[in-house]
Amino acid sequence: MTRFPSFAALRTACLDLPPANDAAAASAADRNAKLTKPPGSLGRLEDLAIWLAQWQGRDPPRLDRIEVLVFAGNHGVVAQGVSAYPAEVTAQMVANFAAGGAAINQLAAAAGARLQVVPLNLDQATADFTKEPAMEEDAFLRAVATGYDTVPPDADLVCLGEMGIGNTTAAAAIAAALFGGGGMRWAGRGTGVDDNGLARKRAVIDRAVKRHAGLLGDPLRIAAALGGRELAAILGAALAARRRRVPVLIDGFVCTAAVAPLMMLRADGLAHVMAAHVSAEAAHRALLDELGLKPLLDLGMRLGEASGAAVGSLILRAALACHAGMATFAEAGVSGKL
Amino acid sequence: MTRFPSFAALRTACLDLPPANDAAAASAADRNAKLTKPPGSLGRLEDLAIWLAQWQGRDPPRLDRIEVLVFAGNHGVVAQGVSAYPAEVTAQMVANFAAGGAAINQLAAAAGARLQVVPLNLDQATADFTKEPAMEEDAFLRAVATGYDTVPPDADLVCLGEMGIGNTTAAAAIAAALFGGGGMRWAGRGTGVDDNGLARKRAVIDRAVKRHAGLLGDPLRIAAALGGRELAAILGAALAARRRRVPVLIDGFVCTAAVAPLMMLRADGLAHVMAAHVSAEAAHRALLDELGLKPLLDLGMRLGEASGAAVGSLILRAALACHAGMATFAEAGVSGKL
Repeated sequence: MTRFPSFAALRTACLDLPPANDAAAASAADRNAKLTKPPGSLGRLEDLAIWLAQWQGRDPPRLDRIEVLVFAGNHGVVAQGVSAYPAEVTAQMVANFAAGGAAINQLAAAAGARLQVVPLNLDQATADFTKEPAMEEDAFLRAVATGYDTVPPDADLVCLGEMGIGNTTAAAAIAAALFGGGGMRWAGRGTGVDDNGLARKRAVIDRAVKRHAGLLGDPLRIAAALGGRELAAILGAALAARRRRVPVLIDGFVCTAAVAPLMMLRADGLAHVMAAHVSAEAAHRALLDELGLKPLLDLGMRLGEASGAAVGSLILRAALACHAGMATFAEAGVSGKL
Repeated sequence: MTRFPSFAALRTACLDLPPANDAAAASAADRNAKLTKPPGSLGRLEDLAIWLAQWQGRDPPRLDRIEVLVFAGNHGVVAQGVSAYPAEVTAQMVANFAAGGAAINQLAAAAGARLQVVPLNLDQATADFTKEPAMEEDAFLRAVATGYDTVPPDADLVCLGEMGIGNTTAAAAIAAALFGGGGMRWAGRGTGVDDNGLARKRAVIDRAVKRHAGLLGDPLRIAAALGGRELAAILGAALAARRRRVPVLIDGFVCTAAVAPLMMLRADGLAHVMAAHVSAEAAHRALLDELGLKPLLDLGMRLGEASGAAVGSLILRAALACHAGMATFAEAGVSGKL
């Protein structure tokens, strides 16, 4: 028995979401107002404390267990020459994650986070979506379920990321299918393709959207036809986190495209999701704008691997440290406003 | 014997600065290129590793000792009704720092940093600079020397910040004197003055700049006449850090105005200084632009206390973790670009 036996079952789960905990949010806002600082002077740090409280359902919130989840997959569309790196690099980087040598190993450690790396059938790339759907329904739903089941119910925060040579092309194809504008709007240089590679990416995206034009009203079928296993797993993980009341930090362009269908299905489907950063991948800002997500950081990063999300979690730690640790005006004997 | 017996002696010190260590910078850039990631994909994290290396003079750089220095002072100009809080709050907040209840206590702990709070003659406010110079030469130079002597020679990074009711007016007056544009350009709401308070601040700044117009060619005399003791100490600390090869993270608007004279005296006088964030204080971005400083963070913070600098140090820790800890392509057996 699979977790999601059909597109319809998954769609039902995506529509059946718990709301924010308004009482916890109100408690956090009330505490913010009493702390020894001018009202609002910690800026987004104050908002982040409220956001954590409202999705964890408690004030103060906690960050005792931060879980970084990196999903990896391979993509048939690399046959079209859309990446600067060979497809073998996906598995090589998974080995590098296991050996502790990648950026995300260092960043997860710096954030005091646990790292789980989940390779999804790396020896079996998805189909080339310029020719057929990347995944059939069953393969897509299994990848979603894998992501769903990876989210620890007792996590206080999940950071989502990915590794997959070719996956900025998949992400751009999803974005083009959901929001229009074609390859010209959504293709970027990814890991560093040259001008010819970029032109090929644009054409590939346009061909793919045209081929799968019949699906354009269905966000989940778009994710199956134009995405990849790691993107499907990210969607599943973001969905599980909502249903398990775990706030989520997403990483860059690929991650954002992966979770976008959740908002297309339900307007508040990403209310528990914070964009950790805006990446240097050209189309990421446009995609965040489409989703109404305001990134925490803008550091010119474009690595993936949940690297931006892990850095973003440091900002959440700072926010929580202030919210939970500061004295109130009354406790400290500090005068209020004139 | 004071460290700086005259404006002239301080000016000489401000002009006699060590350069960056180019060899350490080249070594850091070379290592960045070999790490298991597409070139440049860690964005500013890669630049920060180089910046730390070139000012510490070693690759890899270290962040074993991060020192947060918060200087506090009181301002005669508060008599003009430019702040939303009474002047007693400066000393009350210093007591709150000592008790561990302020934002900076939590943020310094989160950053693994040591915190030193240095009150400067809190019972003796500077003069009201709409009427006379805020400080005479001797008082200014003593405050500069206090800041200078607070920087530990073995620190790997110094985060600078301030506390002082009324000091955004002093900072705005310095900015107006250095860069023109008057109170309309440089006054903001500080800790939260209302519209009337803001109008008073603007007028105060214009009156002050007019009164001290004879000094406008001399950045150090401007800092003495229009600044405050904590701003002078910050200038001294930034100068000491350069001469002791310690990189500096500055906090918000007040801190940036405090160090601005160093760049007016010598074009590369702030090359060892990074702006941790752009604050919500309206004029901060304009001041950073005047100085060519690109902030790391934009989180809407406007608290002071080195709070933004402490959060910024988390980004430096992330940068160093990647730079020092990642495997190279050769070590990890990962294929390079096609």
